[in-house]
Amino acid sequence: MPIAKGYAATDASKPLTPFTFERRDPNPDDVVIDIKFAGICHSDIHTVRNEWKNAVYPIVPGHEIAGIVSAVGSAVTKFKVGDRVGVGCFVDSCVGCATRDVDREQYMPGLVGTYNEFEADGKTRTQGGYSDSIVVKEGYVMNIPDNLPLDASAPLLCAGITLYSPLRHWNAGPGKKIAIVGMGGLGHMGVKLGAAMGAEITVLSQSLSKKEDGLKLGAKEYYATNDPATFQKLAGAFDLVICTVSAEIDWNAYLGLVKVDGAFVVVGAPENPIPVHAFSLIPGRKSISGSMIGSIKETQEMLDFCGEHNIVSEIETINIQQVNEAYERVLKSDVRYRFVIDIASLAA
Amino acid sequence: MPIAKGYAATDASKPLTPFTFERRDPNPDDVVIDIKFAGICHSDIHTVRNEWKNAVYPIVPGHEIAGIVSAVGSAVTKFKVGDRVGVGCFVDSCVGCATRDVDREQYMPGLVGTYNEFEADGKTRTQGGYSDSIVVKEGYVMNIPDNLPLDASAPLLCAGITLYSPLRHWNAGPGKKIAIVGMGGLGHMGVKLGAAMGAEITVLSQSLSKKEDGLKLGAKEYYATNDPATFQKLAGAFDLVICTVSAEIDWNAYLGLVKVDGAFVVVGAPENPIPVHAFSLIPGRKSISGSMIGSIKETQEMLDFCGEHNIVSEIETINIQQVNEAYERVLKSDVRYRFVIDIASLAA
Repeated sequence: MPIAKGYAATDASKPLTPFTFERRDPNPDDVVIDIKFAGICHSDIHTVRNEWKNAVYPIVPGHEIAGIVSAVGSAVTKFKVGDRVGVGCFVDSCVGCATRDVDREQYMPGLVGTYNEFEADGKTRTQGGYSDSIVVKEGYVMNIPDNLPLDASAPLLCAGITLYSPLRHWNAGPGKKIAIVGMGGLGHMGVKLGAAMGAEITVLSQSLSKKEDGLKLGAKEYYATNDPATFQKLAGAFDLVICTVSAEIDWNAYLGLVKVDGAFVVVGAPENPIPVHAFSLIPGRKSISGSMIGSIKETQEMLDFCGEHNIVSEIETINIQQVNEAYERVLKSDVRYRFVIDIASLAA
Repeated sequence: MPIAKGYAATDASKPLTPFTFERRDPNPDDVVIDIKFAGICHSDIHTVRNEWKNAVYPIVPGHEIAGIVSAVGSAVTKFKVGDRVGVGCFVDSCVGCATRDVDREQYMPGLVGTYNEFEADGKTRTQGGYSDSIVVKEGYVMNIPDNLPLDASAPLLCAGITLYSPLRHWNAGPGKKIAIVGMGGLGHMGVKLGAAMGAEITVLSQSLSKKEDGLKLGAKEYYATNDPATFQKLAGAFDLVICTVSAEIDWNAYLGLVKVDGAFVVVGAPENPIPVHAFSLIPGRKSISGSMIGSIKETQEMLDFCGEHNIVSEIETINIQQVNEAYERVLKSDVRYRFVIDIASLAA
């Protein structure tokens, strides 16, 4: 069994610490990847701190993985040694089904998360990208376009696809007015991707502190949600409002910004239920929906789109020894806009 | 000015009483209708009791109107004296806009309700169908197919279109599994219409007391929502769930019955907001939407569809002197399935 080094959580209340573990022996359809960079997603923190009540320790988090193929199994056809590749939030899907649902596999019960889950064998725990190598079935590995830097591409594998998928599903494009709520790791990707699709993007952020960035990344307008006038001025203005914040905000106020037949789409999950008034929905045939990452097929499409449009995440690169400190800064929204761990620092 | 006789509410706490009032002089584009039947909608009760805080008394309620054309203005082209016609929830739309939105006028700010609102002139109060005549612009009058009885057709104008529109909008048809929540005046129309469209209809009612009716009207299955096993058995079963109840039920439980990419559509409006969990929406890209009646164009389409499929409401006909008693029975859900006032009783 190949040995991997990484950082793991061993308990909900302890910091991540160095951890050595075994990866599985590669199967004929597996790709072995030297991990070069791993993004830090807020879900990593929720998981390792057991806020979702499903943690099985030790956990090596990380599902925004960018690296280089170091070996391929005999049956692998899509990748060769040296390829620049990415792995996202899951490493298998549709387990137990006769056919893989290539368009919606992220919503199927047989999804296998990149970490803190069981592999398809039902026994081996999956471990994520805060580590120097990973073994993944080729069908769950994606190409990172040559013109994109690996470090800033890592967050595309979760933050990028989390915004790309609803933008596509709700038909972002020329003539569409779209609001992105929250200007963080997710939101700033929504601005870049939505603008590249040709939609008119407005950022709705708590304050105007990141306005300059927002406009630079492609937003046409930028409003502060701590100003009640924003909700009057923008009433009924948007075809689509994508909410990236997991804070408990008043969804009814945001539904007021949606046009007739418009959609309010939640990609950030508040811990508690949010009260929704029927009269926020009925008089305009409005909807509230949720959206979660994307399929492998759609994630590859997103990476190709990013290659064509030269889109990557805005990142702050850290050494892995700084990961616990970075977590605290994520919780304070003190990052512009995504932390990425340089895995080379593991050897330091 | 033509004189009309009817029943009106003069105060939130008083019963409806006989009331004589003036209808406007017909304009060249107006149709004058001898009202024969008027359905009783729960909204009538909400409005006259000022539960929606917008009552201006006196109010003649009634927006499920069926009658016979008694006169037409000189510019009227679609109707002639003797035609069997209906009037629904609004008598004008898109007021103040350059173009009428014929497909979505019910959601436009310029909608003029059939009663308790101002006519397009901004001064005259509209008064509804619990009366012997009404004057309506021809563009807001619909034909009732010859093969349908006038009395049982009256509820199609609100209850019928309230279900028809979301069924069409969310693509009800062969191969679709649809649940109708609530087996009342709205719900029973959903069963009939959905089944006629070719969808497989399941009724979700509090108890099984109306099961026999439900199956007779076209439902394939019928489950009691007071049995928790229903929610386990039907998890992820439906493409579409239409909720007709205005009671404060747990929408999250019903979202659990929806398939990936499925919709939970609210046509009954609970008074208070309902807590919605993001995790009820995100892991299946599910949605909660609202829907409200339909456009005149769509309502005529619905009436024609009902004519083709011989669909009307199940009704209990009453004399207008029984209206206050009928209101109490509506509040107790003691009607199968819609009260219709025989306006001839006004002359009694």
